[in-house]
Amino acid sequence: MKRTKIKDLLNTTDFGQEINVQGWVRTFRNNQFIAINDGSSINNLQAVVDFTNTDEAILKRITTGAAISVTGDLVESLGKGQRVELKVTKLEILGDSDPEKYPLQPKKHSLEFLREIAHLRFRTTTFNAIFKVRHALAFAVHQFFHEKGFVYMHTPIITGSDAEGAGEMFRVSTIDFDNIPRNEDGTVNYKEDFFGKSTNLTVSGQLEGELAAMAFGEIYTFGPTFRAENSNTTRHLAEFWMIEPEMAFFDIHDNMDLAEELLKYVIRYALDHCGEELEFLKGRLLEEEKQKPQAERSDMDLLSKLQFCLENSFERITYTEAIQILKSSKPNQKKQFKYLIDEWGADLQSEHERYLVEKHFKKPVILTDYPADIKSFYMRQNEPDELGRNTVAAMDILFPGIGEIVGGSQREERLEKLEKRMHDMHIPVEEMSWFLDTRRFGSAPHAGFGLGFERLVLFVTGMTNIRDVIAFPRTPNNAEF
Amino acid sequence: MKRTKIKDLLNTTDFGQEINVQGWVRTFRNNQFIAINDGSSINNLQAVVDFTNTDEAILKRITTGAAISVTGDLVESLGKGQRVELKVTKLEILGDSDPEKYPLQPKKHSLEFLREIAHLRFRTTTFNAIFKVRHALAFAVHQFFHEKGFVYMHTPIITGSDAEGAGEMFRVSTIDFDNIPRNEDGTVNYKEDFFGKSTNLTVSGQLEGELAAMAFGEIYTFGPTFRAENSNTTRHLAEFWMIEPEMAFFDIHDNMDLAEELLKYVIRYALDHCGEELEFLKGRLLEEEKQKPQAERSDMDLLSKLQFCLENSFERITYTEAIQILKSSKPNQKKQFKYLIDEWGADLQSEHERYLVEKHFKKPVILTDYPADIKSFYMRQNEPDELGRNTVAAMDILFPGIGEIVGGSQREERLEKLEKRMHDMHIPVEEMSWFLDTRRFGSAPHAGFGLGFERLVLFVTGMTNIRDVIAFPRTPNNAEF
Repeated sequence: MKRTKIKDLLNTTDFGQEINVQGWVRTFRNNQFIAINDGSSINNLQAVVDFTNTDEAILKRITTGAAISVTGDLVESLGKGQRVELKVTKLEILGDSDPEKYPLQPKKHSLEFLREIAHLRFRTTTFNAIFKVRHALAFAVHQFFHEKGFVYMHTPIITGSDAEGAGEMFRVSTIDFDNIPRNEDGTVNYKEDFFGKSTNLTVSGQLEGELAAMAFGEIYTFGPTFRAENSNTTRHLAEFWMIEPEMAFFDIHDNMDLAEELLKYVIRYALDHCGEELEFLKGRLLEEEKQKPQAERSDMDLLSKLQFCLENSFERITYTEAIQILKSSKPNQKKQFKYLIDEWGADLQSEHERYLVEKHFKKPVILTDYPADIKSFYMRQNEPDELGRNTVAAMDILFPGIGEIVGGSQREERLEKLEKRMHDMHIPVEEMSWFLDTRRFGSAPHAGFGLGFERLVLFVTGMTNIRDVIAFPRTPNNAEF
Repeated sequence: MKRTKIKDLLNTTDFGQEINVQGWVRTFRNNQFIAINDGSSINNLQAVVDFTNTDEAILKRITTGAAISVTGDLVESLGKGQRVELKVTKLEILGDSDPEKYPLQPKKHSLEFLREIAHLRFRTTTFNAIFKVRHALAFAVHQFFHEKGFVYMHTPIITGSDAEGAGEMFRVSTIDFDNIPRNEDGTVNYKEDFFGKSTNLTVSGQLEGELAAMAFGEIYTFGPTFRAENSNTTRHLAEFWMIEPEMAFFDIHDNMDLAEELLKYVIRYALDHCGEELEFLKGRLLEEEKQKPQAERSDMDLLSKLQFCLENSFERITYTEAIQILKSSKPNQKKQFKYLIDEWGADLQSEHERYLVEKHFKKPVILTDYPADIKSFYMRQNEPDELGRNTVAAMDILFPGIGEIVGGSQREERLEKLEKRMHDMHIPVEEMSWFLDTRRFGSAPHAGFGLGFERLVLFVTGMTNIRDVIAFPRTPNNAEF
């Protein structure tokens, strides 16, 4: 008999059918009521066992975590909390779960504990909800770009280029630590390594993305990227997924429009398709915030915050304007910022970004035209301002609670200016000749940005630790499972 | 003025509008006709310049590869080969392309040459077509699983587990080759490495996928996987993308049904959405095959071959039946196989797979129930056959020209049998305790498979070298760009 998914049953009114359901026991009450979950929904199906006609030995095996197959009639439920239930006529234990040993009991577990059993935490309602939202967001990203005619590119994970400049890298190698090939001068002979050169894990697909954009017009990547940085924070991962669109013939304004449209599209998609999950996560967040002092709680609940992002235009201001606002802000005047804003040129910290978004504008903010000195070599150089200060056509989108969620720029398409900047920043121009070819042959204005996928999931699910929105987080000293 | 994409113009009948198009010059004929391509289509737009009223210096800069912006009226074309053309009123050179230096000239380049300039080959019609098909297939994969309620999982790329057993691995490390931390016994002290242990690039997301399937029911992965094997063939890459669905409560038959449905869905999607690209690639393949002796040419053209896969049920036979067929086959009798099939237990080579598919059945074949000795530890053990031979519930899908495109199995869900097999195969049971937890707590029948994405793209595009269907191929001694 064909199995039916619980998600398809919970909203049916087609009673009286004989149904087979397979899933895992969440709870078993009164020797009679099994709450069964098959992963298709965050909600359970209630299956009612006729315990008078069921073998005692079987009943004892209906424990939390056990896998079972139940067949019976679907009937309208008279109990509270569900519309339908299954009157069991046949029950089979597929796999036992020893209640003395099973780590997940029907009670609240801390997120810290669940992180240690990341291979089992998927079986909780919280993580079912998180990963359903994560799925919906990933699908929405693909659908958004597909509908616009963008080409999905798989840029390389292993890279021989170390000039991306976005952070520390992991080496990829097949060289045996106990038998390192050396050149005559004692340096490592990477010619003996798998790729015949020193290779690393990519920190960004942008440079390769630019090559594709200068042929296909509009492309995006969605793949893993890596940082070998020793950051043990709630916002950093050593391995994370990033979305990087790159568009020929786009200037910085087109770029901002696209990023804002993308963020709104995927948030709306999650609201439209994950209503139950987000409602559950809203409740979870409210519970979590009850533990916090009043002053640290959010002004808005999760759903209101998401709606709020959809309803407001993102505020677009220049870095120079932001510095003015921050300089004269209360926390700066009262020296409450850890890093006081003193003068133009300072790099903004998370506390400043959050002040702008959460206190000053109370909506997402796009900061543009940063000082050239604190930004990457490939960003387009603006004309110096009236004080002769050099800025680049960068754009960062700041979100409440998260800080920077998108970082992008119009790219420097002028060969001479780009080469000069690379020289100044000690970037090996020779090695990057392939990248410069886009500027040598048919260069054109173009732009792009990077969206950290886990930061997006963190924002939409209202979770507070990035390790809770990726299946098996990789962080310093942690590569379990 | 807002730019319009060429793809949207080529089929319009809405003449007389003023339009702006930006793209790259493919050819410039008679000082008058520019073939311009913006990447949105494999087809070019013809733009007609009024050379009598255009500056001579500008005309000279309209060279192959130059980026230009043209504005003008869209009119019905009187010329052959296009329905519309743009009567240029304004032309701007965005980026020059020195015809003496630009490597892509308006002539046929060899695929070998284009591989060396992989950063520019996207600008050819062939590679535009390939990457449009690749995009369509990737999107179709996501849509197929999304519609079925599967959860898209990002399983880890960096793994601390080396028991996946699918092949040689790349080490991921931040240890300095010139300063290797050692334990007292002289071995490398991986506690000093970034993750506090030895880590590698994943060869498969399956084991982690199983964990998720045993909670969400049905999941899939679509991510990069790696093999550090020194295989310089037209079918192998060191870095490639794989799709790995994993389903609780599926047996091997459900698994085969799903895999066949997936392959047919994505091939149909490509036919429905990439008609022009596939038509072009069909012509390309015909040209390529003209260089070959008659006997080596395909019986069917590209489109016929794709249609053929849709129209036929994949032939499902056991390994044991396949051995019978191969043993009594002509090439075996006449000793034309490189590896003669002598007895049951032999591993099948590509020549055997292709014989079954291309000569014997003349359609895709699913081989099941392989000898246990030549398959992985996690495959479900069948009852011994009437001769006492041990097989496992494996299933491999073989495609014409490609050989194995899908490899999968029902998984061994019985803890004792799995543990025994792991012991026998010297797999560290202790280290894999997290994996075995799925069998300890609520185990259930489940199954899954892996589909090599580049092999799929190879099949659908009719290309013959796998390096031509991925943007920047990684192979031994090659990690360029």
